[in-house]
Amino acid sequence: MSKQELVVLDESDDAEACCPGLLTAPLAEGQAVELAKVFKALGDPVRLRLLSMIASRSGGEVCVCDLTPAFELSQPTISHHLKLLRQAGLIDCERRGTWVHYWLVPEMTDRLAGLLTRPAGEPLPERTAPVGAAS
Amino acid sequence: MSKQELVVLDESDDAEACCPGLLTAPLAEGQAVELAKVFKALGDPVRLRLLSMIASRSGGEVCVCDLTPAFELSQPTISHHLKLLRQAGLIDCERRGTWVHYWLVPEMTDRLAGLLTRPAGEPLPERTAPVGAAS
Repeated sequence: MSKQELVVLDESDDAEACCPGLLTAPLAEGQAVELAKVFKALGDPVRLRLLSMIASRSGGEVCVCDLTPAFELSQPTISHHLKLLRQAGLIDCERRGTWVHYWLVPEMTDRLAGLLTRPAGEPLPERTAPVGAAS
Repeated sequence: MSKQELVVLDESDDAEACCPGLLTAPLAEGQAVELAKVFKALGDPVRLRLLSMIASRSGGEVCVCDLTPAFELSQPTISHHLKLLRQAGLIDCERRGTWVHYWLVPEMTDRLAGLLTRPAGEPLPERTAPVGAAS
């Protein structure tokens, strides 16, 4: 019983572990340039849908032949969007025979999530607390 | 002692609370269009730096007159970037006399962080575990 409780305490510690982020200090120019490329890759509805289709696939990877039918777009257009996601480090791929297979690079989405996460336990600023107070 | 352990267990539960996200199910077209606008606003180095300067300011808000000197850009250009961040719901503002004051809308960055967070406890897919194995 006491052993089980100890495990829970460790998990709680892990959940609090976080990262210096976008919200805690002014971003340096070089970091901003690098990071903007990743967000720019996410700034398109087709690419967001492709990413969510790849990320949510059980088994972890998707054949491009299973992605194309979901869109009213040509395969070269889909491939171009996939290339931009890959160049941003969000997905990776491997060709097997005729088809290319894609999978999520979770380390990159983890990094973005960390950057956008407020320091643990930080309250909402007073300024935004009374909704409607702002003009 | 047992009371203290109970509190920790509760905190651990809260940390696990999460959101249906980009990574757990294919995104609907309408959601993707809406979300892409926010990521597109983040897809520019000047806007990322502005957001980080606003978000990390202790006290929670910044006068536009304190933001402009950090950039070699005209004030109308800075104001244009701030307008795009505001239209994306990432910041809000209020004019007081000559100057406009800006602050973060943490609900939006919280939402993005949630969307990019993998379901709690999900291991990295086997595919990405052996780094270097992918072509």
